[in-house]
Amino acid sequence: MMDSWLMWLKTPVIFGVIGLLIAAFFYFKVMSLGKGTETMERIAGYIREGAMAFLFTQYKVLAVYCVVVAALIAYGLGGLAAGSFVLGAFLSLLAGFIGMKAATYANVKTTQAARTGSKPLALLTALDGGAVMGLSVAGLGSIGLGVLYLCFKESDDKVLSSVLHSFAVGASSIALFARIGGGIYTKAADVGSDIAGKVIENIPEDDPRNPGVIADNVGDNVGDVAGMGADIYESMVAAIVAAMAIAITSSELPTLISNVDASVNKLIAIGLPLVLSAVGLAVSIVCIFIARMMKNMDPAKVLRGALILPPIVLAVASYVIMASLEITQSVTAIMTIGAIGGTIIGLVTDYYTSSTPVARIAESAKTGAGTNVIQGLAVGMESVAIPMIVVAVVAYLSNKYLGLYGIALSAVGMLGGTAVVMTVDAYGPISDNAGGISEMSGLGPEVRAITDELDMVGNTTAAIGKGYAIGSAILTVLALFSAFNIEINHVRSLSGLGAVELVLTDPKILIGILLGSILPFLVGSTTMLAVGKAAGAIVVEIGRQFREIPGLMELKAEPEPKKIVDIATKAAMKEMILPGVIAIVAPVLVGFLMGPASLAGLLAGSLAVGATMSLFMANAGGAWDNAKKYIEKGKLAGEKKGTDTHKAAVVGDMVGDPFKDTSGPGIAILIKVMSVVSLLIAPLIATL
Amino acid sequence: MMDSWLMWLKTPVIFGVIGLLIAAFFYFKVMSLGKGTETMERIAGYIREGAMAFLFTQYKVLAVYCVVVAALIAYGLGGLAAGSFVLGAFLSLLAGFIGMKAATYANVKTTQAARTGSKPLALLTALDGGAVMGLSVAGLGSIGLGVLYLCFKESDDKVLSSVLHSFAVGASSIALFARIGGGIYTKAADVGSDIAGKVIENIPEDDPRNPGVIADNVGDNVGDVAGMGADIYESMVAAIVAAMAIAITSSELPTLISNVDASVNKLIAIGLPLVLSAVGLAVSIVCIFIARMMKNMDPAKVLRGALILPPIVLAVASYVIMASLEITQSVTAIMTIGAIGGTIIGLVTDYYTSSTPVARIAESAKTGAGTNVIQGLAVGMESVAIPMIVVAVVAYLSNKYLGLYGIALSAVGMLGGTAVVMTVDAYGPISDNAGGISEMSGLGPEVRAITDELDMVGNTTAAIGKGYAIGSAILTVLALFSAFNIEINHVRSLSGLGAVELVLTDPKILIGILLGSILPFLVGSTTMLAVGKAAGAIVVEIGRQFREIPGLMELKAEPEPKKIVDIATKAAMKEMILPGVIAIVAPVLVGFLMGPASLAGLLAGSLAVGATMSLFMANAGGAWDNAKKYIEKGKLAGEKKGTDTHKAAVVGDMVGDPFKDTSGPGIAILIKVMSVVSLLIAPLIATL
Repeated sequence: MMDSWLMWLKTPVIFGVIGLLIAAFFYFKVMSLGKGTETMERIAGYIREGAMAFLFTQYKVLAVYCVVVAALIAYGLGGLAAGSFVLGAFLSLLAGFIGMKAATYANVKTTQAARTGSKPLALLTALDGGAVMGLSVAGLGSIGLGVLYLCFKESDDKVLSSVLHSFAVGASSIALFARIGGGIYTKAADVGSDIAGKVIENIPEDDPRNPGVIADNVGDNVGDVAGMGADIYESMVAAIVAAMAIAITSSELPTLISNVDASVNKLIAIGLPLVLSAVGLAVSIVCIFIARMMKNMDPAKVLRGALILPPIVLAVASYVIMASLEITQSVTAIMTIGAIGGTIIGLVTDYYTSSTPVARIAESAKTGAGTNVIQGLAVGMESVAIPMIVVAVVAYLSNKYLGLYGIALSAVGMLGGTAVVMTVDAYGPISDNAGGISEMSGLGPEVRAITDELDMVGNTTAAIGKGYAIGSAILTVLALFSAFNIEINHVRSLSGLGAVELVLTDPKILIGILLGSILPFLVGSTTMLAVGKAAGAIVVEIGRQFREIPGLMELKAEPEPKKIVDIATKAAMKEMILPGVIAIVAPVLVGFLMGPASLAGLLAGSLAVGATMSLFMANAGGAWDNAKKYIEKGKLAGEKKGTDTHKAAVVGDMVGDPFKDTSGPGIAILIKVMSVVSLLIAPLIATL
Repeated sequence: MMDSWLMWLKTPVIFGVIGLLIAAFFYFKVMSLGKGTETMERIAGYIREGAMAFLFTQYKVLAVYCVVVAALIAYGLGGLAAGSFVLGAFLSLLAGFIGMKAATYANVKTTQAARTGSKPLALLTALDGGAVMGLSVAGLGSIGLGVLYLCFKESDDKVLSSVLHSFAVGASSIALFARIGGGIYTKAADVGSDIAGKVIENIPEDDPRNPGVIADNVGDNVGDVAGMGADIYESMVAAIVAAMAIAITSSELPTLISNVDASVNKLIAIGLPLVLSAVGLAVSIVCIFIARMMKNMDPAKVLRGALILPPIVLAVASYVIMASLEITQSVTAIMTIGAIGGTIIGLVTDYYTSSTPVARIAESAKTGAGTNVIQGLAVGMESVAIPMIVVAVVAYLSNKYLGLYGIALSAVGMLGGTAVVMTVDAYGPISDNAGGISEMSGLGPEVRAITDELDMVGNTTAAIGKGYAIGSAILTVLALFSAFNIEINHVRSLSGLGAVELVLTDPKILIGILLGSILPFLVGSTTMLAVGKAAGAIVVEIGRQFREIPGLMELKAEPEPKKIVDIATKAAMKEMILPGVIAIVAPVLVGFLMGPASLAGLLAGSLAVGATMSLFMANAGGAWDNAKKYIEKGKLAGEKKGTDTHKAAVVGDMVGDPFKDTSGPGIAILIKVMSVVSLLIAPLIATL
């Protein structure tokens, strides 16, 4: 048995490398496709330059951050941990770089495919471009953790733990800044150029005269490709590390294999999350190819199938693998539960952001912006309930099967399709960009029709992907939280101290809960304002260009999009600092000043508020967006673009923009970062 | 010592009766003032009738509720508990009835005083009218609990506990429905008649032709007098009961008096919160008279002083009393901390709803409703931080002094000025109504100037009062939560069972936290929608009246305000059921189905989310409201009523209306009701 297990332990690296090779194959395949018109290529060039400029500026800021934190980690936990932190961060940045590069080529190639009239080719191009990101994220994550584990599995628990935790902190830190910075950039550019273009100058969306349009398209890439990629990479890493951490330190590990030593059982428990995730990657690769073969079908069905399939296939695969390794089928049960739970959350998200609730929000716009905003907020608040209940049920059942370790595994199961989720997520901005390029290049409406259809499909399927992401994030935080507590008591027992009982009614914990509940609101507030401030600066600059560049409005002169890109980049860098620092400093301060009990309270408070607030904001934002589109498509009797009702809906959409793409995701990642950081510092504060 | 203690134990009843007598004195004093014009009296009559109609309709619904719940309590905990529940509910209703009666006479008397040109008399009339409510609330609460304790202090702990808890559940239930029902009514009438009048028909606010204006004025009374009264009555009762409950069952009670038996120490601990609250009432009475003497001063200073003084004087009084009884001065320290904490929260609330943040929200309206809404939401989110930190610090320090019992006492200290807080709160709608009556009766602008000034002062000072209310609510919930846990383990130890360790990382608790975090969002969502729905029905009816009543617009015919009052009443009754039921059924279901650990988690989750959400919503709403007024007063350069910027600010105000007066307070009371209900059912679920 142990021989075949050692073989399985190599799968994370093997499947990871295969994933990267396939990503390379897709990358070159996309690059080999035909070029577009000179205008198309020039515009795509602007977008690519802007996106890369953002990435490199961000790299500089993050480099400083990484050096400082690595030094602190080296001081507190040793050089090995610091190196692992840097590796976790570096692989995230690398995945972002590869994915963004691919996306900013795939966009214009998709437009070109649409220009030749081939919808299947356009679909395939956008999908392949997205798959580069999807496979890089999952592949690099799998390789990174896989190699680390193979190198350090013989080391003592303390070393292994600190290496894994540091890797996760590296991944989380980058995700935090990439998500918040990207979120601020994308929404500032979106809102800023909308206000300046559509509202003030009264020109259509994506009009080539608007200097902000390039920045808006850049924003799709830095927010939805690079930011989302870092986020999903972090989710995957954190879920795996949480399960491994519990396996390493828990004294109450469930029996996975009967009739073996406790030490063997423990080894299996430590490696299993990695193996399951690697199998998930393999399954995802197969599903991507199946999706590609279906290119002539309805794109909506193709993407939906590609998303729902992997976790289910993973559950089936788990059955076979567990049987062959003689591991309990409780693991398969948990994989199944995770898969089903994630799918339900996805469908519920889809319901609230596209079905009856959206029609009701559109309807409410008839009586003005006030009622539209109220209705959207109410829908968002309502949408919190079912996903939270589903997560609670998944946690309950997984715990029944395999205790806290089971809860961590359920997150791994829910994230079985990481590569596909990311592929579909990156597909969205690629097809959105493709539409923007076709508009700015003055291509005909028949081209736009194809890109619009691809874009629309991406929007709805993204909701399902979000379901897996949010559900697994909450489960991961629960697992990390348990891992934190186990680690604290593990370290204490090593120092000959008694366990810290985290009793809920201990005032230290209650105070921690009160303080923790503040943090999501602070991140929400700072990110909302950041978008507002940055958008304001963009509006001013666009106004200046229209005033000072003679002939711009008459299409006789070119706008200066780089200046807008520059403003958005600088603003995003500046404004991401405060929320980022809150997320990282808060747990460290509370941990060192008030001790582990208060820190546990802090995590619990921020989890309760953060999970619900991020669901609320993401779903309200999505629903407002689609309510506006609902009216634009003429689905609300007697209404269309430009009516008072539509204008009211635009107000809701504007509020929803930072909700869904900046603050909501920012809060979601806040709670993950806090948990990971707490886990990392656990050995240092355990005896305080 | 014990003799003088027994004397002190009578103060709750004695001071309570004195309070009621003074309330009666104010009531008849107000009634004896001069009558207004025939029109004034007729309009005031409509308002009074409407308010009373609401109250009696609500009584019918609540009667059914009380009978059902009393039966359930009788079944589970015996007839005594059921009777106490009914008493707690009845006294709340009685206070509401008396206060509302006084307020709906004081409004027109205030107008009349303003008509005679006497601002001091107008101030005094509004203040006296409010004081009837303030003294009734504090007096009846003090008498009710005081009598119960005198009757049952010799009974065994179990009986005493169940009597006190049931009384608190009675108070909480009424508060829940009165606050939510009143909140829905007042905002539906406000928003409905604003949309129909100001937006659709383009007539000014409080225009006598608008059939909704009476309902709007009724709403001020049912929301801000009756609803707020029930809420504050509940806060006071819950804070006292929480401290008493801890004293009764805790096995780790702090030493209040040295060199006495543990049993004597316990007796002192049980009675002390009642005595302190009674002394607070006496102090408040004195402060009300001092405020009355200052009637010729700036009203803002008078009210502000009246609010800040009582908790401080109470702290001083506590020093003297504790010294005379030889009780530890830690009690005085806690009273002082509570008073200071409450004042800080009040000032912070004031800052966020009237200072720089408001100017910034007004400024943001220049770029439209979207940015105005975003800015208001961001301000509201930011405003959560300091109050929560203050509460955490108060809890931390109080706990240092006297453990969990200390936390409960700090809430009692913060609520030292209950009678004054309620007086000032009821003063607000009285002067608001006075303005409405003067407008509808066509009195001159010089009358309106006086009532407007009184009204404005009421708005800002109300913020300070809110500080005490919210801060004490969170502290009370913390204390109730501890009391719940202590009660559970107390009951278990009586049954020979071991203590339930509420370990934070227990999956049962984590699942409870996840479920609990949903509830504030559900109450937020249902109440927001309820206001929208009810307002919509009112808009339709007002439109019908303008169409179908010939000559209404030309002032040749009278509107039918009763129909609007009727619609608002029915809608409020119908819509308050769902959120009310959620609040009461959720803890019962979770407690009985999932056991005490999950229920504790449920409370913790809903506390974290509920405390922050209610602060967020209340402050955002207040800030939007004042930003609109800021523009109306011409404080934003180049802007005034009717400009696009003002219209954008009106959108924010409309969103803020249900935020601050329906959903925010509704969520705050949700967490209190859940804790009280949990405490009540604790003995029944302790061994599950």
